[in-house]
Amino acid sequence: MTMQRTPLLMSKLLDRGAWIAPDEEVVTRTAGGTHRQTYADTRRRAAQLANGLIDHGIEFGDRVATFMWNGWRHLELYHAVPSIGAVLHTLNIRLGAGDLEYIVNHAEDRIIFVDADLLPILERLVPAIPRVERYVVCGDPDAEPWETSLPDAVDYEEFISGFGDGIEWPEFDENAPLGLCYTSGTTGNPKGVMYTHRSTYLHTMAEAMTDTLNLSAADCACGVVPMFHAMGWGLPFAATMLGAKQVMPHRFMASEPLLDLIASERVTISAGVPTIWQGVRALLEASPDRHDLSALDRLVCGGSAPPISLIRWYWDTHRVEMIQGWGMTEMNPLGTVSRRIAKRSQLALDEDARFANVAKAGLLSPGLEMKIVDEEFRPVPHDGKALGELLVRGPWVCSEYYHDPQPEKFRDGWLVTGDIASIDPEKYLIVADRSKDLVKSGGEWISSVDIENHIVGLEGAALAAVVAQPHPKWDERPVALVVSAPGAELTGDRVIAHCAERFARWQLPDEVLFREALPLTSTGKIDKKAVRAELEAEGYRLPDLRRDAPSARSA
Amino acid sequence: MTMQRTPLLMSKLLDRGAWIAPDEEVVTRTAGGTHRQTYADTRRRAAQLANGLIDHGIEFGDRVATFMWNGWRHLELYHAVPSIGAVLHTLNIRLGAGDLEYIVNHAEDRIIFVDADLLPILERLVPAIPRVERYVVCGDPDAEPWETSLPDAVDYEEFISGFGDGIEWPEFDENAPLGLCYTSGTTGNPKGVMYTHRSTYLHTMAEAMTDTLNLSAADCACGVVPMFHAMGWGLPFAATMLGAKQVMPHRFMASEPLLDLIASERVTISAGVPTIWQGVRALLEASPDRHDLSALDRLVCGGSAPPISLIRWYWDTHRVEMIQGWGMTEMNPLGTVSRRIAKRSQLALDEDARFANVAKAGLLSPGLEMKIVDEEFRPVPHDGKALGELLVRGPWVCSEYYHDPQPEKFRDGWLVTGDIASIDPEKYLIVADRSKDLVKSGGEWISSVDIENHIVGLEGAALAAVVAQPHPKWDERPVALVVSAPGAELTGDRVIAHCAERFARWQLPDEVLFREALPLTSTGKIDKKAVRAELEAEGYRLPDLRRDAPSARSA
Repeated sequence: MTMQRTPLLMSKLLDRGAWIAPDEEVVTRTAGGTHRQTYADTRRRAAQLANGLIDHGIEFGDRVATFMWNGWRHLELYHAVPSIGAVLHTLNIRLGAGDLEYIVNHAEDRIIFVDADLLPILERLVPAIPRVERYVVCGDPDAEPWETSLPDAVDYEEFISGFGDGIEWPEFDENAPLGLCYTSGTTGNPKGVMYTHRSTYLHTMAEAMTDTLNLSAADCACGVVPMFHAMGWGLPFAATMLGAKQVMPHRFMASEPLLDLIASERVTISAGVPTIWQGVRALLEASPDRHDLSALDRLVCGGSAPPISLIRWYWDTHRVEMIQGWGMTEMNPLGTVSRRIAKRSQLALDEDARFANVAKAGLLSPGLEMKIVDEEFRPVPHDGKALGELLVRGPWVCSEYYHDPQPEKFRDGWLVTGDIASIDPEKYLIVADRSKDLVKSGGEWISSVDIENHIVGLEGAALAAVVAQPHPKWDERPVALVVSAPGAELTGDRVIAHCAERFARWQLPDEVLFREALPLTSTGKIDKKAVRAELEAEGYRLPDLRRDAPSARSA
Repeated sequence: MTMQRTPLLMSKLLDRGAWIAPDEEVVTRTAGGTHRQTYADTRRRAAQLANGLIDHGIEFGDRVATFMWNGWRHLELYHAVPSIGAVLHTLNIRLGAGDLEYIVNHAEDRIIFVDADLLPILERLVPAIPRVERYVVCGDPDAEPWETSLPDAVDYEEFISGFGDGIEWPEFDENAPLGLCYTSGTTGNPKGVMYTHRSTYLHTMAEAMTDTLNLSAADCACGVVPMFHAMGWGLPFAATMLGAKQVMPHRFMASEPLLDLIASERVTISAGVPTIWQGVRALLEASPDRHDLSALDRLVCGGSAPPISLIRWYWDTHRVEMIQGWGMTEMNPLGTVSRRIAKRSQLALDEDARFANVAKAGLLSPGLEMKIVDEEFRPVPHDGKALGELLVRGPWVCSEYYHDPQPEKFRDGWLVTGDIASIDPEKYLIVADRSKDLVKSGGEWISSVDIENHIVGLEGAALAAVVAQPHPKWDERPVALVVSAPGAELTGDRVIAHCAERFARWQLPDEVLFREALPLTSTGKIDKKAVRAELEAEGYRLPDLRRDAPSARSA
């Protein structure tokens, strides 16, 4: 061939970062302060770890699991495991025991690396995951020595000690598996997405583009999104490739320690779900002068859609650009991003118009393709109104689930996302809802997400969930569950009146129920499935189906 | 496989640009003004062109040549030809007839698209390129209708007219050939580099990264580098993918029309060789208030190293960042770039230190690897001093020349670049010289480029070439040829004194020869081969080899 066929292997990324920026830091929050090491250290320790894994007998394609927070050892595993051709399997520590047992057994994990503070959770699973050969425990340097009932457990430092800190990574096909993430499905067992070196390498290149996350070697990146969620949205890989500083919060993700870390390490870009940034905002509003945010430039917000009021608050108050991203575990995960100025034609827009764009899921990353289709898979027009099921295609989109193909999720080479969306004439993706969360009322669709985002824009509303409830005439009708902000005096009528400012009468929730809290999923989103289950357990019925209902729309 | 194997095909790029930014403009300078069309137009016309080519019988892998300036039709060819699986062969209009005849025949071009104003050059070649089946002429809409002696010539608009403006691009292997560029070698015949879809697609992604060219959809990109030089440095592809505005100067590349175009179209990023930016600077200095450069943000400068004084002038005077790039036709062509702030550790540097970095060839693009080696191919230390031959590797580096493998240019999967370079501890590439241009004096190497760049930093020195001349004792000694700026009164002693401020005595030129002009290569660089040939034709001898030499170092 005329051009080199150099495979796109992830081992090149750490090698580049450690080569170009050997002295740049990887900083991890610990119980007593911070742990700091350089990329040169990380490269040496990743080599020791790789040699240790090979010595243990880990071979090409074997699964090595992590049960860990974001931290420097997790980063070493991110690079060492794939670089020797093994598969990094990041276990979601927030899943229930049944799911975790299923996942460990389904993946056939040979080793599990576990953070010491998470030992109690893992220990309970041991009887059900007998094929795990080895547990490697990662202790906090500032904490007491760990103790565990795990069989044959060894300390991480002991596991890697004695091994050489140099290694020549092997070359192999770029379509080799690299990492495994399971999605917690709404029905059936969790499904595994097996990323390849090629998919993740291309995804890393895409994240380093100006028009996506604008990542640069001059950045200091703090991923608050856990490294067990879709590979920490790819941030650890991209930051390493560029030689950018990395800051890792470990388990200290409450607003206060997080803000301390962002300020003291001069973080320039951070990433997390909307609830994180809502909490941080509340703290900043409560004590506006305590944290120095002068270095912070961008907040990536994904997992669910941030309210426009939140996006705007960060810009107006701190000149921090909140980049909305939409993606899926099935796509590595980056799909679309919304930037303040995403096209040349937007240079002339006023701020309101810009924020209206940022409130959309965004423009598709270079490298991907998308379309929306009706139930017969016919294309739906891109008018920003017509809804269809979203299909995506591209080199970092999965084509089957691991050892569980699920052919109905794929069609003609496209991933059927399960998201209901519109695409506007400017080609912005606007995600209306997960198909299972849409409210189907009288043959029309109501987006629960749109109403939720509008409700939390109301002062005094902290969280909102809108779910469908069965109705004999309309099929389904929406009900809103709202958590008030501390001290706020909100009424159902006030919430409905606020919704009526934007939505048609038939789209308004039939009732507003106030709650102390709402159940969250393992990825920090509001768990609509659990909300619906709670209502069912309570024997909830819509107001006009209740004999004693005094009013259709009060709490 | 678990992830989609979507091939990296260039047809995706125009489709994305025309989809996401259908109304963004492609503006071309014409004889009477500008030609303007949108990306939607470009997509439609590229489809017509593709259908016309298929109708003509162009098949997968066939070569379709262009003999054209930068313009909208050239852009249509850039996308249409590769997207149907044919090969775009960009002929360098500045080559001599012998080279051009060799190249057209070696490439077996079936069709040549030619700009009407270039007809006289091409017409002379016809008898020697009998296998070309068809000539398609691109007329300037503001000029007189073209006439030509070319056999069977057809107008571009006629060639595409009548064909449908819709097409579904075929899918094929991403390692399929995409484009062909010949390098004008110093010895032997020109050598062809056959880019593949994969190599160019990955190169396009790399150019859209923050840390390389920082290209964005909000940019207005004006490539002054001809589209027949290493695919216009990839700018037409990257700008199209992002949906950025594109501005094309066609043949109007003199400083005055270029500056008019940059100002009137609000160009944000432009790219060209140093001589272009030196000319533009001279014009800006002569009439400082005539052109509005407020939109201009970055100038990419490659082909040869720009003097640090030039880089600094653009920043100090216009706050325009000159990005130095180093690359080769053999690498698509991007290799390294130098940015004002390229690492986090540089945030604390003062301006002088930053410009000292920008004056280096730069940091390696993500995706590539490089090393410097001695004559036995042993690695040379990265201390910024030790010189070695530069070797590069990566997915957009060529592995052989087209139908002319040249195995001595490749070694163990690396391209032997022919550049002599050092790498400093910060991993900056510092290109000392082309191996053939180095002066080998007394067993030591003298970089002709370093001395040339230093000389043009002297007020009154417009151009400088330093070449080796044979010497019985030292092997070779350097001689400087200098073109003075208009009106400047420069002497050889003044030039030597200026050089002595930086270089050791043994590195100083033995003589300074003043010239009215210096020969330039087809890519706008000073043609050292021609300079050496001129000196030889004149019977030049070094001063201390001349009986009558009054002084060793005067003109």
